[in-house]
Amino acid sequence: MKLNDRGLLIVISGPSGVGKGTVRRALFNMPKHNLTYSVSMTTRDMRPGEVDGVDYYFVKKEEFAQKIKEGKFLEYAEFVGNYYGTPLDKVNEQLDKGNEVVLEIEVEGAQQVKNKVPDCVMIFIAPPGKQALYDRLRNRGTESEEVIQQRIEKANREFQKAYLYDYIVVNDDVNNAADRIMAIIRAEHAKTERSIHAYMEMIGENNNSIDKP
Amino acid sequence: MKLNDRGLLIVISGPSGVGKGTVRRALFNMPKHNLTYSVSMTTRDMRPGEVDGVDYYFVKKEEFAQKIKEGKFLEYAEFVGNYYGTPLDKVNEQLDKGNEVVLEIEVEGAQQVKNKVPDCVMIFIAPPGKQALYDRLRNRGTESEEVIQQRIEKANREFQKAYLYDYIVVNDDVNNAADRIMAIIRAEHAKTERSIHAYMEMIGENNNSIDKP
Repeated sequence: MKLNDRGLLIVISGPSGVGKGTVRRALFNMPKHNLTYSVSMTTRDMRPGEVDGVDYYFVKKEEFAQKIKEGKFLEYAEFVGNYYGTPLDKVNEQLDKGNEVVLEIEVEGAQQVKNKVPDCVMIFIAPPGKQALYDRLRNRGTESEEVIQQRIEKANREFQKAYLYDYIVVNDDVNNAADRIMAIIRAEHAKTERSIHAYMEMIGENNNSIDKP
Repeated sequence: MKLNDRGLLIVISGPSGVGKGTVRRALFNMPKHNLTYSVSMTTRDMRPGEVDGVDYYFVKKEEFAQKIKEGKFLEYAEFVGNYYGTPLDKVNEQLDKGNEVVLEIEVEGAQQVKNKVPDCVMIFIAPPGKQALYDRLRNRGTESEEVIQQRIEKANREFQKAYLYDYIVVNDDVNNAADRIMAIIRAEHAKTERSIHAYMEMIGENNNSIDKP
């Protein structure tokens, strides 16, 4: 029995190359969860096989621009001429249903989310060491030394942002990291600040909560 | 891999009759934990079969009084002419070894602990409903209606103290409650405020953490 029935907005972020996507997939592969993954909105063209509302919500640039003006994105960014964003209303729908919404985003976008939804749960995925991350960035592909150096400098800037997060989870082992995130979600639901209202109602004079299933 | 290697001081408390002891025992029966239970100090006489340092630390009243003066108790209380207290140095020894120390104490004592160790983890065990607790208090023994009423009034005062805790865990099912406490312990270790120092060291220029086991 949990006192706080609303879902949590879970932000999974961290430096490029740390394995955010792998951790997120491990999290979604765990049994018995009510995690939902937020579908982004984009202005880019739909590709063959993609489904509107599943892969992305596909909209025209004017519609996207209007939504930005109206503050309807949790976060958004431009990438090679197209916009990508997380629609706030879709996220709230899931949270109201009691589902947790997981966002896997870059360090820059994470701070936008915290500003919009202060009670979101911010998780920073850290590598087991700086060198481990450099090695991953280096071994990823066949990029030039210049591109690799740019990536390392970006990672170095992102490393410094960990203090802005609620939790730091080391990705030394992907299942261990996913386990720890699941523990964080359970613990967050038990936090007094999230559950004190339901608790006070429960112990109220006219409560009949013991009759509920 | 956890960034914060020091143990946590876990305070398990809640109204009389809520099942704190049962939850604590379920917690200690879980596999793979490094929980330790704090041994109290007392001025009462040792009983046959009891072992000093295992059941209690047995001391004379003068020694106990001196320790109170020197602020060497996390919390203490008098009960039918004898003193009972939690020695701070023993708790710190365990925490330094990386063990979690669990205290199962009354609501009154819990606040003393929070004042002494502000970064302890305060967990309030709540019944699934007010009536459920009343029923338990009533069915416990063969006490008079007067004694039962006193207990209910005490529980009603203790109910109001939940807001002073970090977490509220409902004891609807003892294993579920113990599971949730274990999740809280894992999450607390990942909290940025506890792990940022170790993290900053890890990403320091001269770190060699990837070579560590």
